[in-house]
Amino acid sequence: MSVIEKIEKIRDAKWFSNLTTFIILAYASVLGFKTIDEVEANYAIFLQFADAFVTIYFIFEIAIKMAAEKKFINFFKSGWNVFDFTIVVITLLPLEQSGFAAIARMLRVFRVLRLFTARPELKAIIDMLIKAIPSIIDIVILMFIIFYIYAIIGNFYFQDLPSGLWKDFLVSMLTLFRVLTFEDWTDVMYEAMEVYPMAWIYFVSFVIIAAFVFFNLFVAVIIGEMQKIQEADFHDEVHEDSKKLDILLEEMRTLKEEIKELKKKE
Amino acid sequence: MSVIEKIEKIRDAKWFSNLTTFIILAYASVLGFKTIDEVEANYAIFLQFADAFVTIYFIFEIAIKMAAEKKFINFFKSGWNVFDFTIVVITLLPLEQSGFAAIARMLRVFRVLRLFTARPELKAIIDMLIKAIPSIIDIVILMFIIFYIYAIIGNFYFQDLPSGLWKDFLVSMLTLFRVLTFEDWTDVMYEAMEVYPMAWIYFVSFVIIAAFVFFNLFVAVIIGEMQKIQEADFHDEVHEDSKKLDILLEEMRTLKEEIKELKKKE
Amino acid sequence: MSVIEKIEKIRDAKWFSNLTTFIILAYASVLGFKTIDEVEANYAIFLQFADAFVTIYFIFEIAIKMAAEKKFINFFKSGWNVFDFTIVVITLLPLEQSGFAAIARMLRVFRVLRLFTARPELKAIIDMLIKAIPSIIDIVILMFIIFYIYAIIGNFYFQDLPSGLWKDFLVSMLTLFRVLTFEDWTDVMYEAMEVYPMAWIYFVSFVIIAAFVFFNLFVAVIIGEMQKIQEADFHDEVHEDSKKLDILLEEMRTLKEEIKELKKKE
Amino acid sequence: MSVIEKIEKIRDAKWFSNLTTFIILAYASVLGFKTIDEVEANYAIFLQFADAFVTIYFIFEIAIKMAAEKKFINFFKSGWNVFDFTIVVITLLPLEQSGFAAIARMLRVFRVLRLFTARPELKAIIDMLIKAIPSIIDIVILMFIIFYIYAIIGNFYFQDLPSGLWKDFLVSMLTLFRVLTFEDWTDVMYEAMEVYPMAWIYFVSFVIIAAFVFFNLFVAVIIGEMQKIQEADFHDEVHEDSKKLDILLEEMRTLKEEIKELKKKE
Repeated sequence: MSVIEKIEKIRDAKWFSNLTTFIILAYASVLGFKTIDEVEANYAIFLQFADAFVTIYFIFEIAIKMAAEKKFINFFKSGWNVFDFTIVVITLLPLEQSGFAAIARMLRVFRVLRLFTARPELKAIIDMLIKAIPSIIDIVILMFIIFYIYAIIGNFYFQDLPSGLWKDFLVSMLTLFRVLTFEDWTDVMYEAMEVYPMAWIYFVSFVIIAAFVFFNLFVAVIIGEMQKIQEADFHDEVHEDSKKLDILLEEMRTLKEEIKELKKKE
Repeated sequence: MSVIEKIEKIRDAKWFSNLTTFIILAYASVLGFKTIDEVEANYAIFLQFADAFVTIYFIFEIAIKMAAEKKFINFFKSGWNVFDFTIVVITLLPLEQSGFAAIARMLRVFRVLRLFTARPELKAIIDMLIKAIPSIIDIVILMFIIFYIYAIIGNFYFQDLPSGLWKDFLVSMLTLFRVLTFEDWTDVMYEAMEVYPMAWIYFVSFVIIAAFVFFNLFVAVIIGEMQKIQEADFHDEVHEDSKKLDILLEEMRTLKEEIKELKKKE
Repeated sequence: MSVIEKIEKIRDAKWFSNLTTFIILAYASVLGFKTIDEVEANYAIFLQFADAFVTIYFIFEIAIKMAAEKKFINFFKSGWNVFDFTIVVITLLPLEQSGFAAIARMLRVFRVLRLFTARPELKAIIDMLIKAIPSIIDIVILMFIIFYIYAIIGNFYFQDLPSGLWKDFLVSMLTLFRVLTFEDWTDVMYEAMEVYPMAWIYFVSFVIIAAFVFFNLFVAVIIGEMQKIQEADFHDEVHEDSKKLDILLEEMRTLKEEIKELKKKE
Repeated sequence: MSVIEKIEKIRDAKWFSNLTTFIILAYASVLGFKTIDEVEANYAIFLQFADAFVTIYFIFEIAIKMAAEKKFINFFKSGWNVFDFTIVVITLLPLEQSGFAAIARMLRVFRVLRLFTARPELKAIIDMLIKAIPSIIDIVILMFIIFYIYAIIGNFYFQDLPSGLWKDFLVSMLTLFRVLTFEDWTDVMYEAMEVYPMAWIYFVSFVIIAAFVFFNLFVAVIIGEMQKIQEADFHDEVHEDSKKLDILLEEMRTLKEEIKELKKKE
């Protein structure tokens, strides 16, 4: 067994992925609990150690993944590897010493995202979620149009209301998003109704139209997924049956021909 | 290639639809950002120019669509063309100079709705949404009956409550809509319970009944859509198989007859 | 055509059902708008007239339905007829003059429920909704158990909280229903957390467990309905195909027998 | 009929399960209504009696279930029996006299959970719910990662806000759960936006990402369940048809062979 094969075996081993998962979770706990027990000197040292350890482990792990490829360039052909590589490189940048110390501390959290690549199941779910995006992109555009028109109208009529919820176009969009989540939307409505008593038409129509579009999005996605399954998984079998029937019909015809010949012979 | 064919080619070209989309989106941004950077003299001129440009482009675009038809009257046979035409005509009305300047400014926003006709995918979604309406119309009537009865009862018992949420029939309907979105519905209930301690029966029963009907609406629509797909997409194949089986049975019978004849001959 | 047949024809006529629908809707509007335009003397007379007219029309309509039956007793065999009859009888009771005038006015609203029997589509939806109840009855029991246990625990720990939201078992149930609708549930939680800092476990676990059960109820109902359709609508065809295949196999065997006989003969 | 067979018959009898259900419900009512009518001396005695009676009945019932097994050890092979046994044993512990009186009173409530084992339908639903857990476990992990990262970021930026909603990692998690239920989430956002005007990006992105993942979880579960049904319930029949077709094809071939032989003979 060559060295590359040995390294490849390590890379694909279950224990290696479990070890990575464990180290990431331990590091995540350290980051999490640090916020609870208020910072002490000892703790800061421990965190620094954990930080260094994880940095080294990540470099070691990515080195194994790189070494396992026959051609070095293949490593960068997988989007997930590029994702891993970017996270490792970013956390290696010496930002701690520079003026970006706060940002550097922030970036540590994104190491937890490496859980995706450590666990194949999560990788599969993320891939599935990304695949689901195109099927809803047009409904997102439609939602945007609805938001846009209502935001312009809302800003036009309600911009001088004391709450300032409609003071410009972007704030109006945010207010509409709030209305869609039903969060204190009646407060927004009652304030508008004091100036324009018919403002309830604006709010009720927005809620009903947006909910109706959203509801149809939901149904469309479920139906779309169902169709894909039925085509892939089940139609295969029916197709096969259909082919068998065609063969049967063909055989039947040759049989008939032969019997006709039999008759003629006699 | 005749002139009409050339115009038809332009109308159906991808770049023409993309150009229209781009112009509408640019115009929408102008309208949107106008609300953020507070109005300056220069800006007003820019907006006036954008306005004029879009008006001319729309007239030009609709002229192409009209010219591409062999018979002029065919243009108005498509609902979407009528929709386009109405938007263009309305924005051409000289309302700016009249007393309806505010309304005229409002109407400009509806030009963004032309995105639907510029993008065929959105046209398809809108068509789908409109087609979905009849399948829920009866549940909408049912919802209305539930709202109606609860509104009359609520108005009857709670009309003198200080909040004024039940002061007449229409306001009661609005309050019930608010209760259905769960927006501070307990505040409404607790106020009523101070006068009628059993008022929780009214609110809890309304929430449960309305949610139950809504839930069934949801299930009914999904199931209905599923059924349509199964009938259209999948039954075809099974129908075909069924027909093949009928042919096979028929062939089998003729075969039997021929063998019987064979027997008799001998 | 006998008299009964003529009456039957009227009863089943589309215009008769439409007339009833129209009269009920007109009456519903009268009842509704009465609450908006505050009561005037003239209006009270108009309402009294509408009331009398609807009462007479309902008696007339139910008489037609009764007369259309060959056997009088058959009329009461339909649950919907009993429903109609009850509404008519109740509104005939001379409660107006007695001490129950307020209740009598209330009962008028329930006449609107006759829309169900006037419109066959609504009758079908109601029948469907009633049929959907048994399939969720066990999940309702399960929900009740979850509510019960949480209500007892909540009442045990939180009954002395100043808000009085947990003061007895029934009030706790109502509070939990409120928490399930997410209506200001954090206010309830934060109040409890002041006394018991771990109270968030109680609320978060309740929300997650109840939502999870509810979510599964949803899935179970959709799946159940799907299965029914597949069995009823689609399996028929496959069953038929399956039977045809059985016949084919049988025929094949007799064919074989005959060919064997043919061979023997020679 | 041996003694064991008689006991087994009692255990499986419908009246026995109904009796247990009735006793548990009666006991549940006693526990529930105790909280409404404030405690009187008489009532306490009644509750003590009910308590003793239910304890004895539960021991009696579990004894029957144990006696009905041929081998005593089989009793503990069913998880539901272990569940029953645990509840009975716990309520037998003499905690009342010790310092754990309050806990003992609490534990009485869990006797109501025995309704699950008394009613086979509920047992089936619980089994179904437990089976549904693995299919969502990975999405739960994904949700946790999303919560974790947002909690760390939220705690990092917002920990000094006066509301204290982000003061440590665990409190931030709870605040995010609250945001996900849309409960006054705009109050949380507006507070953060006063310090960081761009904080709306944090909240809106969290709501959209978490809702999108949740939405996909929903669709995935429905689709997964559908697939199971189609495989189990429906594919059987198609498989059978497929087999029948294979037999037909085989028979067809032997028929052809025989006709060939016939031909040769002549």
